[in-house]
Amino acid sequence: MRGTVLYGPRDVRFEERAAPKILNPTDAIVRTAATCVCGSDLWPYRGIDTAAQPTAMGHEYCGVVEEVGSAVTSIKPGQFVIGSFFASDNSCPSCRIGYQSSCQHRELVGAAQAPVLRVPLADGTLVKTPDAPSAQLVPSLLALSDVMGTGWFAADAANVKPGSTVVVVGDGAVGLLGALSAKQMGAERIIVMSRHETRQKLAREFGATDIVSERGDEGVARIKDLTKGVGADSTLECVGTQESMKQSIQSTRPGGYVSYVGVPHDVELDGQGLFFSHVHLHGGPAPVRRYLPKLIDLVWDGKINPGKVFDLILPLEQVADAYRAMDERRAIKALLRP
Amino acid sequence: MRGTVLYGPRDVRFEERAAPKILNPTDAIVRTAATCVCGSDLWPYRGIDTAAQPTAMGHEYCGVVEEVGSAVTSIKPGQFVIGSFFASDNSCPSCRIGYQSSCQHRELVGAAQAPVLRVPLADGTLVKTPDAPSAQLVPSLLALSDVMGTGWFAADAANVKPGSTVVVVGDGAVGLLGALSAKQMGAERIIVMSRHETRQKLAREFGATDIVSERGDEGVARIKDLTKGVGADSTLECVGTQESMKQSIQSTRPGGYVSYVGVPHDVELDGQGLFFSHVHLHGGPAPVRRYLPKLIDLVWDGKINPGKVFDLILPLEQVADAYRAMDERRAIKALLRP
Repeated sequence: MRGTVLYGPRDVRFEERAAPKILNPTDAIVRTAATCVCGSDLWPYRGIDTAAQPTAMGHEYCGVVEEVGSAVTSIKPGQFVIGSFFASDNSCPSCRIGYQSSCQHRELVGAAQAPVLRVPLADGTLVKTPDAPSAQLVPSLLALSDVMGTGWFAADAANVKPGSTVVVVGDGAVGLLGALSAKQMGAERIIVMSRHETRQKLAREFGATDIVSERGDEGVARIKDLTKGVGADSTLECVGTQESMKQSIQSTRPGGYVSYVGVPHDVELDGQGLFFSHVHLHGGPAPVRRYLPKLIDLVWDGKINPGKVFDLILPLEQVADAYRAMDERRAIKALLRP
Repeated sequence: MRGTVLYGPRDVRFEERAAPKILNPTDAIVRTAATCVCGSDLWPYRGIDTAAQPTAMGHEYCGVVEEVGSAVTSIKPGQFVIGSFFASDNSCPSCRIGYQSSCQHRELVGAAQAPVLRVPLADGTLVKTPDAPSAQLVPSLLALSDVMGTGWFAADAANVKPGSTVVVVGDGAVGLLGALSAKQMGAERIIVMSRHETRQKLAREFGATDIVSERGDEGVARIKDLTKGVGADSTLECVGTQESMKQSIQSTRPGGYVSYVGVPHDVELDGQGLFFSHVHLHGGPAPVRRYLPKLIDLVWDGKINPGKVFDLILPLEQVADAYRAMDERRAIKALLRP
């Protein structure tokens, strides 16, 4: 089997690797119907997070179960399944309150940019679709494995409610799907910060009512203008930098909510600034597992089409081109077909 | 009239000052029935916050209205009133959602450690009691002006619910009243971090079920022990230092809530640590005005007795002794009688 390995900055190789096998009785082996490159894969790709050694890449997947370990009871070979990037037992105290990405037994799922992958804790992690999906549903189902669930968490953690005024900072796939999620949750006004025409267009398609291209202090001033000086009820921080975090906090009204869903890089929050901003702050790795049943229903019933974020589709063996296109922002998100 | 003035570190004087007058038509003049020293007064007293010039001190007060400006309609001379340390119009967008301490027209109330003070925005700020209170109710009514409202906000912002497991970091008056608030909100378990016997005793009287005297990593380990490795549902950070904030976040379960209600001093939050902690974070200057009507009812009906935090009562002219006793932690909180 060939799979994707990152050797160092901008050095992605699709090369021969051992096929995954059941290691623990709770594992499943899944044949990927599709996989993709994540915005977070670009951190090590760009050398900002350094991988100590060649690393098998990919954590987004959906596909058909090939084999399950002896302890797996709810998932069967032949079923079409989706799982999160964090495997979880779905029964520990963290899971029971909906924070499966902080499961006491969580394991990162890796090596998903490959035709076949091993998923630990299969019973707790994988959710099956009602039936085998049509090919055209696959991109949207794949999106549920990470970006759509993360965008949904961003909106949920920012307390988006019917009538809310929402700001989305970041026009990557997560930000765009955050806008889609806010729309689903009944937000009245959805302001997306974006400077890229294709992303602006998709943002509007997903429900954005306003686009703001200014950044930093100018961006904050524009948000204040658009909200009669008050600020947003909810701001979804979907970038993970010091500047985007600061901008998000300052764009939000006192008593409002800021969510942050991208791993923060070199972010330090000033306690006193946060104190006087009076915002609620919540974030972390999205508990995608919590939302999978609901999101599968929404996709299955045609109510959302998050697969639209995939504006580049390539054969899996061209995975290096997919990284390059995303790195250069020529693609929002690249889907890979095994 | 004599009032309290801070000249520099540990230099508190009670000296002749001009009596306050109506400056704006929305002002009221209140004769204080009692006032007190706040934990936050100790920051400039200790020289950690430096006052640029001699500063009239005090922001906690209750008493009888002597005079109102021409635009004041709901408050009348002769009424017994309580107000917050932030004057607010109670009608701007921030006030309407309950964040009066971020009122668009807020003003700090000052110079309250005096027999008479000026309160701006009287209609929005002052709340009257049902009648003239008995002398024995005055300490508890005074507590509502800041510490009790702040303790209540700490519990509210940390989402304390019936059955919650709550940790209180800080055994000052705010922390102790945070424990009382958590008890009122139905918390099942209330763990107060404290090393001082008199404070531990009052904490238990207010509803604490457990006392933890360890701090830092050892304190966190004790909390984990007491919560089967999970952490608290809600943690009330009532100190305002880097160590107490870190300890609070680490004591809280994934998906749990941390509130912080003391002005943070040199606190920097590590974005990545906060991200993976998965906690909700909310705080700021307590919107005491939001809670005043409810808390006045609770005191009036004898359901809470927050005045118990005053373990030292002095004549106002001995205000310097009050500061000294609190600085040396000989008193939890000192009440001053004009």
